[in-house]
Amino acid sequence: MSTQKHIEIYDTTLRDGAQAEDVSFSAEDKVRVAQKLDELGAHFIEGGWPGANPRDIDFFRMIKTVPLAQAKVVAFGSTRRATNTVHNDPVLKSLLDADTRYVTLFGKSWNLHVTDALGISLKKNLELIEDSVAFLKGKGRRVFYDAEHFFDGYRADPDYALQTLLKAQAAGAERIILCDTNGGTMPWEVRRIVAAVAREVRAALGIHAHNDAEMAVANSLIAIQEGVLQVQGTINGIGERCGNANLSSIIPNLSFKMKLPSVTPEQLRNLREVSHFVAEIANLVPNKHQPYVGDSAFAHKGGVHIDAVRKNALTYEHVRPESVGNRQRMLISDYAGKSSLAAKAEEFHITLRKKDPKAKELLATLKDLENQGYQFEGAEGSFELLMRRMLGKHKPAFELMGFRVIVEKRRADEDPISEATVMVKVGSTVEHTVAVGTGPVNALDHALRKALEKFYPQLREVKLLDYKVRVLAANKGTASRVRVLIESGDHKEKWGTVGVSENIMEASWQALADSIEYKMVKDRRSSKDGSA
Amino acid sequence: MSTQKHIEIYDTTLRDGAQAEDVSFSAEDKVRVAQKLDELGAHFIEGGWPGANPRDIDFFRMIKTVPLAQAKVVAFGSTRRATNTVHNDPVLKSLLDADTRYVTLFGKSWNLHVTDALGISLKKNLELIEDSVAFLKGKGRRVFYDAEHFFDGYRADPDYALQTLLKAQAAGAERIILCDTNGGTMPWEVRRIVAAVAREVRAALGIHAHNDAEMAVANSLIAIQEGVLQVQGTINGIGERCGNANLSSIIPNLSFKMKLPSVTPEQLRNLREVSHFVAEIANLVPNKHQPYVGDSAFAHKGGVHIDAVRKNALTYEHVRPESVGNRQRMLISDYAGKSSLAAKAEEFHITLRKKDPKAKELLATLKDLENQGYQFEGAEGSFELLMRRMLGKHKPAFELMGFRVIVEKRRADEDPISEATVMVKVGSTVEHTVAVGTGPVNALDHALRKALEKFYPQLREVKLLDYKVRVLAANKGTASRVRVLIESGDHKEKWGTVGVSENIMEASWQALADSIEYKMVKDRRSSKDGSA
Repeated sequence: MSTQKHIEIYDTTLRDGAQAEDVSFSAEDKVRVAQKLDELGAHFIEGGWPGANPRDIDFFRMIKTVPLAQAKVVAFGSTRRATNTVHNDPVLKSLLDADTRYVTLFGKSWNLHVTDALGISLKKNLELIEDSVAFLKGKGRRVFYDAEHFFDGYRADPDYALQTLLKAQAAGAERIILCDTNGGTMPWEVRRIVAAVAREVRAALGIHAHNDAEMAVANSLIAIQEGVLQVQGTINGIGERCGNANLSSIIPNLSFKMKLPSVTPEQLRNLREVSHFVAEIANLVPNKHQPYVGDSAFAHKGGVHIDAVRKNALTYEHVRPESVGNRQRMLISDYAGKSSLAAKAEEFHITLRKKDPKAKELLATLKDLENQGYQFEGAEGSFELLMRRMLGKHKPAFELMGFRVIVEKRRADEDPISEATVMVKVGSTVEHTVAVGTGPVNALDHALRKALEKFYPQLREVKLLDYKVRVLAANKGTASRVRVLIESGDHKEKWGTVGVSENIMEASWQALADSIEYKMVKDRRSSKDGSA
Repeated sequence: MSTQKHIEIYDTTLRDGAQAEDVSFSAEDKVRVAQKLDELGAHFIEGGWPGANPRDIDFFRMIKTVPLAQAKVVAFGSTRRATNTVHNDPVLKSLLDADTRYVTLFGKSWNLHVTDALGISLKKNLELIEDSVAFLKGKGRRVFYDAEHFFDGYRADPDYALQTLLKAQAAGAERIILCDTNGGTMPWEVRRIVAAVAREVRAALGIHAHNDAEMAVANSLIAIQEGVLQVQGTINGIGERCGNANLSSIIPNLSFKMKLPSVTPEQLRNLREVSHFVAEIANLVPNKHQPYVGDSAFAHKGGVHIDAVRKNALTYEHVRPESVGNRQRMLISDYAGKSSLAAKAEEFHITLRKKDPKAKELLATLKDLENQGYQFEGAEGSFELLMRRMLGKHKPAFELMGFRVIVEKRRADEDPISEATVMVKVGSTVEHTVAVGTGPVNALDHALRKALEKFYPQLREVKLLDYKVRVLAANKGTASRVRVLIESGDHKEKWGTVGVSENIMEASWQALADSIEYKMVKDRRSSKDGSA
């Protein structure tokens, strides 16, 4: 492998990624994503299929006025229909209308598809490829050719599959991209077939892999080892069925594992941000466990792991998290030991040495609570409060005197109403409030805020972002315990809190009350930070 | 490759999988998962780390009384500490106490870990490995040896890394498992290193890969090509950081892509069900795009794809979805739906032909309900009731007039009390009852039974077995909805029912009411069957 080779990153998040179930981008969304991809250092951005989708026509019009630092925008479409000529084919026309310098044209390589899906002769298909590519070249476009189902086609009839590539090459295609459209090819087949193609084709090659056998990243890198120049994929691997090759893993693997430059080290530090941005725009929950960019990618839970990582991060981290814009996290659970407690305390600005007897006591309490069903990994807010309470470093913002929640359904065809009353004491003042809500927890939240906001106006900034319920020890039916996890946030930060009880309302109350206490602790801490 | 080789599936969902962020299994959960893994055909089930966690000790005690068809339960732990002897080491003692035939012992292969994490000499580490393995062998255990960080260790010092394996082998380890603990190794390195090890080690080899570079499945299969016998992984790839090698992809890849038997074709048809079961127990949202088992894995969205797939499924499907218990979905077509509805109706002893206009109507209602968040996969009871209601074949057992639930906490240090009132009509009689319970849903259940049992004494046989709550992701700007799934059973059968609402009490009511209605339908049906 030469370290001088520069791999081309070809992003198809906006085209193949948009074919994922539940994903739909507006033209404006696409422009914002394209700008982010440009910042990340993608060389080519496939913006859409102007012949198939009116929104894509808007995108190509809008993107013309947006300055991009390096990325080239590419329009995507198919070779002409057999019943048309290149001059009257609507797809080719829409590709020209998109007015991009680069066009990617896809055609058939698999004899089964030619005969069964298109219903034309093998010879006719070669004509479509050759004259469609030549037509676009003649109109001044730089043309890339996507050989759809190339690997399946090569297995079925290697000679014919190769002929389709040679036609595209003869007509002037600058890149020949080998597609594993159905995503079922194994890495050792990719290696063999790419090597065979590289012996026959002069044009630079590309790889476009799908993930139906969980092999898309491996297949892409192995193709690159065999001489492929361009790698196609999507951010977070989104795409039809099981998705496309995941550029969020391919790009750092190229840099760190293969020492093949594609984007710069500075650009690579945007990787996590771009990944989360695309998830946000696509309205998908980011996958915590995603390699390199996920929240858990550098999170350590087992006590043995935490001890070792604190001594030397290399022991359980294959690359530096900061190199892709991520960070190391230590999770609190009963797998943890005293040194991880001490590390957490430090994070919370609390003094707690590993040998302090309180550390042992805290660890025992933690294990006991986890046995009862508490879980603090997603509830660091509650964990900090627990630590402060046990170390005598917490002054409660309020004291609960009682609550009552009523859910009443008066007729079978009416929605029930939910009403909550709360009695709390702040200093020496007793507040008794009532509120309704869309459900009992929502009503309880409203009543609690109503009681506290006049004392603590900053609570108006707090929003409930997520509410999760887990039923524990499931074989006892409704008498089993319930764990409630709440995520809250203000304009600066997010925090999680937890409650556990046989009664879902009590568990919800605990998590709600902790959320509000945590907001106070956090605000006091950051005002101290500011003055230090 | 010989097609006779039988690959060993070693599942560590319950140990390494449990180290995933946000995953926490109770001992009861673990027993249920182990039974499912046994049905899937796993050969070994690593149940936990009895030295690290009190819950795992409970699991090993409980699993002894559970009959498993083929799977062997394995306890996991580390080689002794350098400061202990094998006779006073608590981890080795807890492994013996777990009382399993098989034990997996892990030790260090990487010089960095020996010196930096353990802080002992390289020679001392070899002693720990050898005498820990030998001690367990001497106690009659069959011992597998996990060589932690083997690939990193081999890169740093191949001779030393090999020596650690040879010590374990000499002491009697029956399997030597090469671990890519940090998950950063590339497939071509795995191939080179496994081939080198296979030349030096006589004992059968295993592979344990992590997914930090999105290579865990590829690395596992390539190790198998190089002669490895045992593959370790987890269902859905859950595990610390980016997870473990995903058995839900590895098992079908072995069968379909490598023609290497591991589980039987019949067992493989449980794959999707086991994957969803583990996600459910771990309270994780199943990944729609997961290879083989995800809802989108065989879902077709693009018009071109749908046309082609309807002509020949091979055109865009690399394997048959039914072979892994999945199904093809056309995201814009209802064609497949009507015939499966007709099949379901037959199962319920209801006449519904595919061409009946009611079938189309039912399908539209079903789609609408699924859009609202209902899910009938785990709630066939509710699905049968839906079908009967829409076809005019259901006579309700009771009519709801209203309910009210009160949860009241009178003092901060007291448990809240829950009281429910229910008003229902049976025939022309109105019943108005009140009951308490451990939580609001339990109280509602008690009040409803109190009202109905005098009319329907067979309700005394019904037990609530499971109660699950899932908060459905809110679309932008809407309040989030809650889905409640209830599993009920009598001495003959189990059934699931579902409710969805913005209000958790309303959703619970729907599922409770359906559970009782279904009991009646079921009893009427089986009394008819008996007389037929």
